[in-house]
Amino acid sequence: MTQPTNRQIVLASRPVGAPTADNFVLTQSDIPTPAQGEMLLRSVYLSLDPYMRGRMSDAKSYAEPVGIDEVMVGGTVCQVEASNHAEFEVGEWVLAYTGWQDYALSNGEGLIKLGKQPSHPSYALGVMGMPGFTAYMGLLDIGQPKEGDTLVVAAATGAVGSMVGQIGKLKGCRVIGIAGGEEKCQFAKDTLGFDECIDHKAADFAEQLAKACHNGIDIYFENVGGKVFDAVMPLLNTGARIPLCGLISQYNATSLPEGPDRMSMLMAQLLIKRIKMQGFIIFDDYGHRYGEFAADMTQWLAQGKIHYREHLVQGLENAPDAFIGLLEGKNFGKMVVQTNQPR
Amino acid sequence: MTQPTNRQIVLASRPVGAPTADNFVLTQSDIPTPAQGEMLLRSVYLSLDPYMRGRMSDAKSYAEPVGIDEVMVGGTVCQVEASNHAEFEVGEWVLAYTGWQDYALSNGEGLIKLGKQPSHPSYALGVMGMPGFTAYMGLLDIGQPKEGDTLVVAAATGAVGSMVGQIGKLKGCRVIGIAGGEEKCQFAKDTLGFDECIDHKAADFAEQLAKACHNGIDIYFENVGGKVFDAVMPLLNTGARIPLCGLISQYNATSLPEGPDRMSMLMAQLLIKRIKMQGFIIFDDYGHRYGEFAADMTQWLAQGKIHYREHLVQGLENAPDAFIGLLEGKNFGKMVVQTNQPR
Repeated sequence: MTQPTNRQIVLASRPVGAPTADNFVLTQSDIPTPAQGEMLLRSVYLSLDPYMRGRMSDAKSYAEPVGIDEVMVGGTVCQVEASNHAEFEVGEWVLAYTGWQDYALSNGEGLIKLGKQPSHPSYALGVMGMPGFTAYMGLLDIGQPKEGDTLVVAAATGAVGSMVGQIGKLKGCRVIGIAGGEEKCQFAKDTLGFDECIDHKAADFAEQLAKACHNGIDIYFENVGGKVFDAVMPLLNTGARIPLCGLISQYNATSLPEGPDRMSMLMAQLLIKRIKMQGFIIFDDYGHRYGEFAADMTQWLAQGKIHYREHLVQGLENAPDAFIGLLEGKNFGKMVVQTNQPR
Repeated sequence: MTQPTNRQIVLASRPVGAPTADNFVLTQSDIPTPAQGEMLLRSVYLSLDPYMRGRMSDAKSYAEPVGIDEVMVGGTVCQVEASNHAEFEVGEWVLAYTGWQDYALSNGEGLIKLGKQPSHPSYALGVMGMPGFTAYMGLLDIGQPKEGDTLVVAAATGAVGSMVGQIGKLKGCRVIGIAGGEEKCQFAKDTLGFDECIDHKAADFAEQLAKACHNGIDIYFENVGGKVFDAVMPLLNTGARIPLCGLISQYNATSLPEGPDRMSMLMAQLLIKRIKMQGFIIFDDYGHRYGEFAADMTQWLAQGKIHYREHLVQGLENAPDAFIGLLEGKNFGKMVVQTNQPR
């Protein structure tokens, strides 16, 4: 089943508000040929993550935006299709960052080898990759969980949230999840082992959250912002910690919300309650500690202590719709696109 | 020059917005008599600090409010006037928390002994006390200064700010102060040794600050909030640290500012730039590390490396006006009221 061309999804236009299908175009180009010292990678799995919304805008951020007509960026799990590189063999699996396309060249820089027959190659995009690492370092290093702490995590069944909550349980926290809809809440409690999970779509969401957090909140792992944070803020305990790794509810915002201006109120809360709020970007801040994470997570998975759910979508052509759905919370688990069948 | 009565300044009413003289009343009561195990303290110096504004309100905060008709709280340096306590002798100096009055009883709990002939007893309220300790731990523990960092400190000639900047210089930072008026700015540069000091009353304050911080801001020691923070926010570097010990510009606010609501914008900045913002209350969070501070500061003072300026006001009856002025930035140095002459 050879493919004569390299399918690529490029950024056709910058979204205003929520991305639409029109912002993406599927194009075809020739499959490139590796020079000496290079190899051709063929993607099998593409990770879809909320941060990609930021790359579609040209507002100043921590990373360069994707240019118009450029291939959308993203983490991938690939197989080496052809190799002129001494250290990589055809058929080998690698974790790469080749984006929303079938094929790409690489000189080996930045690749992580995954072996010849990894049991779950796509895990490198989730539980063993960026989202799992984000959950691990954000919770343990910034959140500093103590036995008996109340930990609240939003997007509780998402790639990061589901890991935060489960690691929190392993550290002896009381874990309260927040998720959209009854099915996700049941999953968080029954399968992930959270103590409670509150549906943010419920009319009395804030009241339910307050009731579940009867001893206040010691750690709030922030990845959504907006109304969820509004409900969390009054419940924060003295000395609370807020690792901040995402604000998905805000990514499509085209303007600031109407007033009053609560910026000073947030700062006053941080002051009065002696709260630490800290943003982080996982590989920039903690890249040197990946080994620590990988060792723990490998063990926890082997011991059955961590449950990992993927939301697998078939076909590169479906990546735009899947990504739009991800920003709307329609995924149930880590969003991964299977772009090609393994060889 | 014995005083027949105990003069006390009590909270007459809770301020709405900025405190006025009407919120305070000077009353007289009998001088109390120490029981066995107690002593009578006679204050010589009373510290005035911005946090006292919070105690005048009954909004929920980290400490109980002062009740109506109760004596205003505050740190004091006292002499023991009469003692039925085995461990304290008449004439001894102590750091106490007896508030805005001449006399108070104590059983010794919470007192810090200052000796019989301290060279600068009032220093215990400033450079060697709460403000100095706040500056030291906030800058060093939360701010984590590195050689060459740009450190911005507001209220640059105040009790805390003046120490933050000088300690920052000792740690190799480039220190940019912010103060109200040319005289204070000159003092910060000429006497405290700051690299720059910007007048926040200048029409082009934000532009001047941006120009002075040509490499961005690595540490912003926050004790004022409001317009100063608005000017600081866009200059913050990736990985910046914001120790948050006060928001003096907000203390008299009766409502939140008009919109738009920039709370999500602040959080987005913390996320994108991986910033740590952390509130702290010095003795609650760092009480166990006082010795570390005292050792360093004693040495720096002895070596002439730290300059300390007091704004001394004579007479307990002038404490309300002095306090109102403090909130308006009219003080020049650490605000201390000399309530009585030493014996």
